Amino acid sequence: MSSRQDLYPSRQQAEPAWMERQDPVVYTQDRAEAPLAPELIAQFERDGYMVIPELFCAAEVAAMSAELERLRNDPAVLASDKAIREPQSGALRSLFEIHCHGGLFARLASDARLAGLARFILGGDVYIHQSRMNLKPGFAGKEFYWHSDFETWHVEDGMPRMRALSASILLTDNDSNNGPLMLVPGSHRHYIGCVGKTPKSHYQYSLRRQEFGVPDDVSLSRMVGRYGIDTAIGPAGSVVFFDCNTLHGSNSNITPAPRNNLFFVFNHVENRLQAPFCDQPPRPAFIAQREPVPPLEVQPRTNAPDSA
Amino acid sequence: MSSRQDLYPSRQQAEPAWMERQDPVVYTQDRAEAPLAPELIAQFERDGYMVIPELFCAAEVAAMSAELERLRNDPAVLASDKAIREPQSGALRSLFEIHCHGGLFARLASDARLAGLARFILGGDVYIHQSRMNLKPGFAGKEFYWHSDFETWHVEDGMPRMRALSASILLTDNDSNNGPLMLVPGSHRHYIGCVGKTPKSHYQYSLRRQEFGVPDDVSLSRMVGRYGIDTAIGPAGSVVFFDCNTLHGSNSNITPAPRNNLFFVFNHVENRLQAPFCDQPPRPAFIAQREPVPPLEVQPRTNAPDSA
Repeated sequence: MSSRQDLYPSRQQAEPAWMERQDPVVYTQDRAEAPLAPELIAQFERDGYMVIPELFCAAEVAAMSAELERLRNDPAVLASDKAIREPQSGALRSLFEIHCHGGLFARLASDARLAGLARFILGGDVYIHQSRMNLKPGFAGKEFYWHSDFETWHVEDGMPRMRALSASILLTDNDSNNGPLMLVPGSHRHYIGCVGKTPKSHYQYSLRRQEFGVPDDVSLSRMVGRYGIDTAIGPAGSVVFFDCNTLHGSNSNITPAPRNNLFFVFNHVENRLQAPFCDQPPRPAFIAQREPVPPLEVQPRTNAPDSA
Repeated sequence: MSSRQDLYPSRQQAEPAWMERQDPVVYTQDRAEAPLAPELIAQFERDGYMVIPELFCAAEVAAMSAELERLRNDPAVLASDKAIREPQSGALRSLFEIHCHGGLFARLASDARLAGLARFILGGDVYIHQSRMNLKPGFAGKEFYWHSDFETWHVEDGMPRMRALSASILLTDNDSNNGPLMLVPGSHRHYIGCVGKTPKSHYQYSLRRQEFGVPDDVSLSRMVGRYGIDTAIGPAGSVVFFDCNTLHGSNSNITPAPRNNLFFVFNHVENRLQAPFCDQPPRPAFIAQREPVPPLEVQPRTNAPDSA
């Protein structure tokens, strides 16, 4: 390990450690320039997330769902390392790097409604750090345990600062019964240093069932006791934006209704990845973009499927 | 197998079979005698369940919770067959036959608020078919998959008709996030004959993870598409009453808040168990009372803990 500073140490101590966030949440000062109502930006800053109902219209959602179905049924896709299966059933759980092959999902990554907002919140040029589609099937969708994305991106990928956010596009209606995203509002202002050393090739199973880099029970109880739990629910086409350090997770889904989402993670160009903050090699590029890819050129909102 | 009639065949065919319920839901005709508002009885009849908020007061809930803690920490209890553990963590998931050792839970079974209502709905003398406490711990509570209790009680225990109901006392607040009971309102009026033959000693693992006697995906989608899903939520002390044939289940619970409940199943004395409707021996007595125990003598509501 070099002598560079680690602002957010984790998985290095025997006891959990809390510290305060050392970075802004919203980087652009002039809220008058916001592409959304200033109240929403203030809500994002306070809670670490916001839900924008039906940001994409039904026709756009239909086009995205068709593309998702095409990918999930492509044998080459299923056989790739980018496809993560459910531990027991073997069903597709996540597919990574969905924005790199042209087509609809590539255009979506640059859409003003996502990339334009990310530019505002993160204060300048951004690129896609990670993209994926998540499928929580009906009847047998498994839970995602509580975690801060930033903790993993920092330790395992070498993301130095908190200057990234996720946009999750709901492709199916999310209600309180089908395992919606749960978030702890306000948790993004704290950083929980986790216990346990990162094991070798951790990502190969952490994407199926995370065991390291998850907060301890006491810290979780304390955080939830202080801030409570919000649920990100809404009709298909809604988008959940959340800060890289907001604690989130979801319960299982035994209802017949699947819960499919697209995820795009935007990172600021001045926050590009360094060497990981652990003694393991970096994770593969399809999980964490390490190359100096050019910033996204924000495209005016397009109305798929006409433009597809 | 004898030539006796099987009104509700299941696990005997290669394809799922739907049939209509052949028994009443509420057996007492004169609703003016109901111990609850007639509207609530009508709701139970229509939906197959009802939630009565805070039927037990905080002091009573505290006494029940203390008794639950005493039992869950008793090594003799934990070592018994009546204790069912979580498949992965080994934590206590259910403890059966909690009403048979005198004390608070025995008195609770006869309490007018439970047994009196059961007498009214089932139309006469009742006894406890099964009792248990269910613990869905925080952080790691697992799901209970969709099922009709009656399907199992009929096939594996030999309960001939639909003339039983469950009372679930919430000992912790149940909200939409901590894996509350989900029910399909109206599902009690249909019976889904399930596919798959009952395996030997099925109960030894079905109580941990049920695989036989669960409806197929198509039937579940059809039922939920027709009736939707309700969630039984409420503060501690609330009671969920549900018919023996109402489809129900619950998702996992990753929140820090545990979800503990007591269950008492009341059966009418004219509906006592026969030989199972499958070719396996009956399940143990702690899961299904087969002896001709005397009917419950309904006790006026007591206000624990004074009377404890």
